[in-house]
Amino acid sequence: MFSKYFLMKDEDVISYVKVKLDSFDGNVVCKEIGDGNLNYVFRVENKQGMSVIVKQAGPQARISDDFILSTDRNRIETEVLQIQADYTPNSVPKIILLDEVMGACIMEDLKDFEIMRKKMMDFNIYPLFAEQIAEFMAENLMRTSDFIMKPLKKKELQKRFINPELCEITENLVYTEPYIDFKQQNILTEGNEEYITQHIYEDQDLHIKVAQLKQNFLTNAQALLHGDLHTGSIFINEKEIKVIDPEFAFFGPIGYDVGCLIANLTFAYMRAIAYKEQEFATWVITSLEETLIKFEEKSKIILQESKEPFAKYEKVLDNFLSNVLRESFAVSGLELLRRIIGLAKVADITTIQPLQKRIEIERLCLDLGKKCILNDDIRTIKKYLELLNKIRQGVEI
Amino acid sequence: MFSKYFLMKDEDVISYVKVKLDSFDGNVVCKEIGDGNLNYVFRVENKQGMSVIVKQAGPQARISDDFILSTDRNRIETEVLQIQADYTPNSVPKIILLDEVMGACIMEDLKDFEIMRKKMMDFNIYPLFAEQIAEFMAENLMRTSDFIMKPLKKKELQKRFINPELCEITENLVYTEPYIDFKQQNILTEGNEEYITQHIYEDQDLHIKVAQLKQNFLTNAQALLHGDLHTGSIFINEKEIKVIDPEFAFFGPIGYDVGCLIANLTFAYMRAIAYKEQEFATWVITSLEETLIKFEEKSKIILQESKEPFAKYEKVLDNFLSNVLRESFAVSGLELLRRIIGLAKVADITTIQPLQKRIEIERLCLDLGKKCILNDDIRTIKKYLELLNKIRQGVEI
Repeated sequence: MFSKYFLMKDEDVISYVKVKLDSFDGNVVCKEIGDGNLNYVFRVENKQGMSVIVKQAGPQARISDDFILSTDRNRIETEVLQIQADYTPNSVPKIILLDEVMGACIMEDLKDFEIMRKKMMDFNIYPLFAEQIAEFMAENLMRTSDFIMKPLKKKELQKRFINPELCEITENLVYTEPYIDFKQQNILTEGNEEYITQHIYEDQDLHIKVAQLKQNFLTNAQALLHGDLHTGSIFINEKEIKVIDPEFAFFGPIGYDVGCLIANLTFAYMRAIAYKEQEFATWVITSLEETLIKFEEKSKIILQESKEPFAKYEKVLDNFLSNVLRESFAVSGLELLRRIIGLAKVADITTIQPLQKRIEIERLCLDLGKKCILNDDIRTIKKYLELLNKIRQGVEI
Repeated sequence: MFSKYFLMKDEDVISYVKVKLDSFDGNVVCKEIGDGNLNYVFRVENKQGMSVIVKQAGPQARISDDFILSTDRNRIETEVLQIQADYTPNSVPKIILLDEVMGACIMEDLKDFEIMRKKMMDFNIYPLFAEQIAEFMAENLMRTSDFIMKPLKKKELQKRFINPELCEITENLVYTEPYIDFKQQNILTEGNEEYITQHIYEDQDLHIKVAQLKQNFLTNAQALLHGDLHTGSIFINEKEIKVIDPEFAFFGPIGYDVGCLIANLTFAYMRAIAYKEQEFATWVITSLEETLIKFEEKSKIILQESKEPFAKYEKVLDNFLSNVLRESFAVSGLELLRRIIGLAKVADITTIQPLQKRIEIERLCLDLGKKCILNDDIRTIKKYLELLNKIRQGVEI
């Protein structure tokens, strides 16, 4: 049994866990708790109250049977979590078993954690977050770059994490469709159709800049990315974070991860503006600043361990980090736009009521996003926050 | 027999060809004709005068038993030749058999061709060369870029051609050692030691720029490169070229191939100056100009077939090609320097007599190479030839 792939139901998962784990025998209960678009997630508990998570990749995406995806993405996700556990053991869930046949893994149940996006939508504050996420990004991104990882080893890993299908999703959803709506999948909020047509669909300079960023995403194998580092991929509590779901992982431009995070913290901030949550808004801004400053500091310290002969020049490391940061803010712009225009929205924004307020907030995101892409001067968190502040002037809080 | 890898001798190769090819039975003769550093090359002829080439990768490099290399490089070389045959069937040798077990291939014997470097050292002129090599580069490089090859397919190929060991050779010999001599493998011509110390080893600005180019080589997977496109990798006659030996192939920056070619044509020109071969020198300059202009024209035409939505903007394609050309001239600079300073020399220069003349010519190459790396304005063949002309003023021809 379980020697050939099939999509498991609750009762299959119970047998599965009993077969694979000695500690799970007798009375075991199972519940499917997945709410993502791609995979099935089961919580399995025994009578002693022990629990684990079983995650299985289906042969199609859950959102559509027509959307065929290789179940190899589960192997990628699990192996990446194992690599990240080497660098940041406290910030990823522990893997108990990887099963390539079933396209499944068994991992630690993060019962004491909640999804960060959800908690931020209720304006919860996490004072340790900036330090924790800066550490996660610096450690995992810098240590898998050619400055720290031996080029021979890096290329072997790069081969294991070539991820064509999931990269294609990003190439389309982030780097193409929001600008030209070529599959007519974009979903524009009522009242913003004209604004988006005029400011996004018809802006050729913007498209030309996006084309350049897209080339970078397609070709620039700098480090092993998480690939989908938004606040919905972060489990959090008062003490710790656990970054989950790296199935989009591949060797790509470092700025893609950092930029994705910046934009998603910005969405939380925009929501706070809409609801006049001053304290929370201030915390988000402080966290954004601290995250970027600490990311740069920690990255620099890690890069100074480099055995690359040219890394002895401070300017080589500074140039490298400066380019990474510029790309991060450009990607933040892409993420700000695509979450407003494209198929995959964020609840921080879509739940804003009334509609008029949502329209207004969306336009702030669009203006900020566009400027981040077009303006090469936005290359420090200081400049980004200045721009953010300028754009939101006139919105009361 | 031949079901397990071993390094073949002449008599083994005779049996090998008889086993593998029906047309080779009875009286067959074999001769090892390889003169490269890495592989064994056998010419096998039957009594009817038919002949083929058997190329086998040894488990060590021929130059040193300590230099262990995977025989998988033969698989890479052969598969790349097969891909290039799709785009430029007349410009690569035909593959008759790929044998992954033996790390060997059987291919067309290019009896009617000679190595271009050798012929250029005797100042032979090939009026069709520019058109032919421009076609070879544009077709193979543009059609394996994301603009033409579907990103899904490109990533599958990229996986097959991850080439850690041979890339590492280039990373060291081209992008590191010439500047810092860290393995003390550099070989400086007597009389140029001080010049190189002062102008190369001690120039930090140069090192910082090289570090940036090295990052680009390590990470920028633009297209399937030949990886070693110098005039010693080109077989030529009056009518055709055959580009051979792509064992260094991988998905890398397009400018690496183009730049390598530019530098090696420049070495032929430098030799012509040394020996006052005006007609040949003029041909090389004309060819350099024609090669680059045609490469750009042909590339643009191919890129216009792109299904990439943003490729409808002329500026997207122009920006892309302009960056490729800038990188090409920067790489030409790297190649000019490393062939003078590093371990692997070119005979065009090393055979220049008397020593004083060689010293002088080497300094021209060093000056030109440095400027190509440092000066971002060198991004057109016109600028390159102006620079070349300025640098060689004062040298009589």
